[in-house]
Amino acid sequence: MRLNCDLGESYGSYTMGMDAEVMPHIHLANVACGFHGGDPLTLQRTLTLAARHGVTVGAHPSYPDLIGFGRRSMHLSREELVADILYQVAALDGMAASTGVQLEYIKPHGALYNDMMANAEVREGVMQAVATYHRPLKLMLLATPGADQHRDEAEQAGVSGLLFEAFADRCYDDDGSLLSRRKPGAVHDRESTLTQVRQLLHDRSVTSISGHRLALEADTICVHGDNIEGVRAIEAIRAIVDEA
Amino acid sequence: MRLNCDLGESYGSYTMGMDAEVMPHIHLANVACGFHGGDPLTLQRTLTLAARHGVTVGAHPSYPDLIGFGRRSMHLSREELVADILYQVAALDGMAASTGVQLEYIKPHGALYNDMMANAEVREGVMQAVATYHRPLKLMLLATPGADQHRDEAEQAGVSGLLFEAFADRCYDDDGSLLSRRKPGAVHDRESTLTQVRQLLHDRSVTSISGHRLALEADTICVHGDNIEGVRAIEAIRAIVDEA
Amino acid sequence: MRLNCDLGESYGSYTMGMDAEVMPHIHLANVACGFHGGDPLTLQRTLTLAARHGVTVGAHPSYPDLIGFGRRSMHLSREELVADILYQVAALDGMAASTGVQLEYIKPHGALYNDMMANAEVREGVMQAVATYHRPLKLMLLATPGADQHRDEAEQAGVSGLLFEAFADRCYDDDGSLLSRRKPGAVHDRESTLTQVRQLLHDRSVTSISGHRLALEADTICVHGDNIEGVRAIEAIRAIVDEA
Amino acid sequence: MRLNCDLGESYGSYTMGMDAEVMPHIHLANVACGFHGGDPLTLQRTLTLAARHGVTVGAHPSYPDLIGFGRRSMHLSREELVADILYQVAALDGMAASTGVQLEYIKPHGALYNDMMANAEVREGVMQAVATYHRPLKLMLLATPGADQHRDEAEQAGVSGLLFEAFADRCYDDDGSLLSRRKPGAVHDRESTLTQVRQLLHDRSVTSISGHRLALEADTICVHGDNIEGVRAIEAIRAIVDEA
Repeated sequence: MRLNCDLGESYGSYTMGMDAEVMPHIHLANVACGFHGGDPLTLQRTLTLAARHGVTVGAHPSYPDLIGFGRRSMHLSREELVADILYQVAALDGMAASTGVQLEYIKPHGALYNDMMANAEVREGVMQAVATYHRPLKLMLLATPGADQHRDEAEQAGVSGLLFEAFADRCYDDDGSLLSRRKPGAVHDRESTLTQVRQLLHDRSVTSISGHRLALEADTICVHGDNIEGVRAIEAIRAIVDEA
Repeated sequence: MRLNCDLGESYGSYTMGMDAEVMPHIHLANVACGFHGGDPLTLQRTLTLAARHGVTVGAHPSYPDLIGFGRRSMHLSREELVADILYQVAALDGMAASTGVQLEYIKPHGALYNDMMANAEVREGVMQAVATYHRPLKLMLLATPGADQHRDEAEQAGVSGLLFEAFADRCYDDDGSLLSRRKPGAVHDRESTLTQVRQLLHDRSVTSISGHRLALEADTICVHGDNIEGVRAIEAIRAIVDEA
Repeated sequence: MRLNCDLGESYGSYTMGMDAEVMPHIHLANVACGFHGGDPLTLQRTLTLAARHGVTVGAHPSYPDLIGFGRRSMHLSREELVADILYQVAALDGMAASTGVQLEYIKPHGALYNDMMANAEVREGVMQAVATYHRPLKLMLLATPGADQHRDEAEQAGVSGLLFEAFADRCYDDDGSLLSRRKPGAVHDRESTLTQVRQLLHDRSVTSISGHRLALEADTICVHGDNIEGVRAIEAIRAIVDEA
Repeated sequence: MRLNCDLGESYGSYTMGMDAEVMPHIHLANVACGFHGGDPLTLQRTLTLAARHGVTVGAHPSYPDLIGFGRRSMHLSREELVADILYQVAALDGMAASTGVQLEYIKPHGALYNDMMANAEVREGVMQAVATYHRPLKLMLLATPGADQHRDEAEQAGVSGLLFEAFADRCYDDDGSLLSRRKPGAVHDRESTLTQVRQLLHDRSVTSISGHRLALEADTICVHGDNIEGVRAIEAIRAIVDEA
C-alpha cells in the first residue's frame, strides 16, 4: 500500500503545500503540470526533490483554470480535453526524464478528477488521452464499487493499467462514493483517519457514514500535506503502513 | 538546404499563419509550444499536419508572454529560463512522439531568439536547457560570422549539434547581422528574396546592404507563411532549392 | 432599432473581426474586456474607433477562458461570477471614460450569455453584478417570450434597465429560443436574414423554424462582422433599418 | 506621515501577505490589479476590508507577468504600457467605487516601479497613463534627491500630484537610492527600522550606508506585511507615527 500526495502546486512567488516536508514520507507524488498550478521552475524543483527521495512521479493534469485552481468544472470538447491532458503529461514527462525521474501514472486533478468519476464521457476522454500517449502510463482513479466497470473501460480504451486510490481522511457515503465535503462528518479527525487506514490495510474495507462495511480494494492511499497538521498525519499514516 | 517556417502559432479561436498551405512546401516546422501561441489543440493539429507531409519538427519555445506574442524581451533568471524552455520542449516532444513525429531541434522564438543572438548569457542559458534535455536535440540559430564561436560554446555546453539558418527575405547589415526592420531596405521584395536564395545556394553568401559579399554557411533557410504572398514566395523558393 | 455587434476581441498579435469596417455601420459596440479576448491595447484602440464614429459602447464580459474564447461553460461560485463581471466592466468603463466614450450597458459573452438565458441562478448573479456597479448600466439579453419575467427579475435585483436583442441571421425555434447551431437551417442566408430584419422592424415578430409567427419586442438587432460577407450583410441591414 | 503597504496580492487559492492583520494599522493600501496578483474576487475582498477600516486605496499596476509576480522587467512599447496601466487602474477604480472606497493614487509595482525610477522613458509612460485617466489620481514614487525633477516632469505631463515614499526597513546608498538587496546591510533589523522611521519623522532625513545624512522629504512610509514579523514591525512603526 503506497501513499500518494498532490505536490508541485506552487506558482511563481505563490507557495502551496509543504512539499519539502511531505516528500520524505510518501511513495507517489502527483505533480501539477502548469494548468491549475505548477510553473516550470516549480516543476523542476519538485522533480529534483522527488529524485532525491526516490519518490515515483505521476502527472496531475487539470482543466486550464489557474484562478480556480482547477476546481471549477469546464465543458471541454473531446479533442480539447485529450490535447490538454497530453500537453500537460508530456511537459512533466520530459522534464522528469531530464531530472532522472520516471513518470509512471496520470492522476487528473480537482474538477477533472470529479468529472471523470461522475461522467462516463469525461472518463472516456481521459482514458483516450492516457492510451494515446506514446508510452504506457497508468491511470489513477477512485477505488469504488464500480472498479470492475472501470477496468473494462480501461481495457477497451487501451489503457495499460489502473491504480485505485482510497482516501485516508474522508468519510465514505453508503454507495461507496466520498461523502460531500459540505456534509457533516465528511472529513475525519486524526484518530478516525488512522483507524480508516488500518481498516483499509487489514480488512480491505472502510466503514461508511451510516456504519456499513464497504469492501474497497485500493492500491494507494491519498494523503494531504497542505499544512503542518497534514504532514504530521502523513507521518503517522506512513508508520502504520510500514508496520503492515 | 532545407526550408524552415514558424507554425502552430494559432491560439484557440485565434488563427495565425497559413499552416495548411505552408506545410506541403517546407522541410522543417518550428512549432509553437504554448507560451507565445499554440494552445494544446493547435499543437495537436499542427503535429498531425506535419506527420501527414513528412515534415521534421522543431520546438519553438518563447518567453512566457502571450499578449506580446513573445516579441518583448523579459529579464528571466537562469533557472527560470532553463525551466521555461524545458517545459515547452518537453510538452511538444511528448505530443509529437504520440503523433508519430520525431522532434529534432529547438529554435527559440522572437525576443528570446534575438536575446540569444545578442547576449552570451542568454545563449548560455538556452544551451544549458538544450543540453539538459534527456535526449539529444539540435539548436537552431542565426548563421553569422560568429558561427565558430557558437560551435565552441555549444561543444562546451554539451549541445549535440547546431543548425544555422539564413533569412531569405531579410537584408543583411555589413557585420553579418540582420538589418533592423526599422531601417529602409530591411525586407526584400520577391525578386530580391529569390536572388538572395540563389546566392545562398550557389555561392554560400549574401550581399549586404552596402553591397559587400558576406560568406554565410547556412543549413536551412527561414521562410514566412503569414499570408498568401508569403505562401507564394515559399513555393518559389522551394522550386529553386529543389532545382539546386 | 439599433444594431449591436461584438468588437474589440483581438488579442495582442491575434486579429479577430473586422472592427474598422464594422464600426461605421453599427450603433452599439459590445467591447470585449480581456477575459475571452481584448488585451488592454486592443480595448484602447476599439474605444478610440468607437469615439470617432460616435458609437455607444457596452461591456462584453466573459468567463475567464482565453483559450476557449469564453465559449465553454464554467461553474463559478456566485461571488466569483459577480467579481469577474465587475472587474471587466470597471476596466472597460474607466478606459472608455478616459477616451471620451460613455459605457451604457453590459452584454455577457458566449457561454456566460447562454448560461444567463438558460439558468436563473446565473442570471441572478449577472443581475447582481450589474446592480452592484457604482453607476446605472443596462443589461442586454435575448428577446424571448420570457421578457416579462426578466423585467420582473431585473426590477427585483435593482437593475436599472434592460435591452432586448434579436438576431438577424439566426433561425428561431418554436419556443422563441434560438435554434441550435448544430441543427439544419440554424443560420440564415443573406436573403432570409434581410427578410427577418424587415419582419422584426415592421411586424415586431419572427417566423420560427416550423413557420409560426413569434411576437418579439426587440430594442436592438445583433449582427456579426467576422468577415467581409458579414460586413456586407451589416451594411444591407443598416440600410433597411435607416429606411424604417 | 502615512503608512502604505502592498495588499490584495493573493490569487485564487494562493494566499500572499497577511492582509487582514495589516489593514487595521495602515493608512494607504496599494491594491494589486490582476497582472502580478489579485484576481477579481481577491480585489473585491481587499476593497471590502479597506472600506471597513477606512483605509485609502491606491492602484498597484504591474507588468503582465503573473509567474514572475511582476518582478521581471519587460520591454513594452509606450502605447502598450499606457494601456496596461489604464486597464488595471480602471478595473480597481470601478470596483472600489462600487464598494464605497475612493481610489486616490497609483503606485506601480515591482519591476515597473524600479524601471520607472531608473528610466526616464518608462517614467514618462507611467505619467502619461496617470494623466490620461479620466479623473485626477496622484502618482506615488520613491523620495530621492531627484524629487524636484520628478515634480517638473509631472507638471509637464499633466499629473495632478505626487506622493513621495520612503522605506522604513531598507538602507539607503550614498546617492539616495535604495541599497541593492544583494548587498550586505540592505535590509534593516527591527531596531534600525524604527530608528530610521524616527529620523524620517523628526529630521526629514535618513542615514546612508556610509554614515552620511541624506535629507528626504517623504509623504508616506512603505511597510511590508508578508509575515507575522512584518505585521509586528508595522504596529511598532504605527505607534511611533501616531506619537509624532
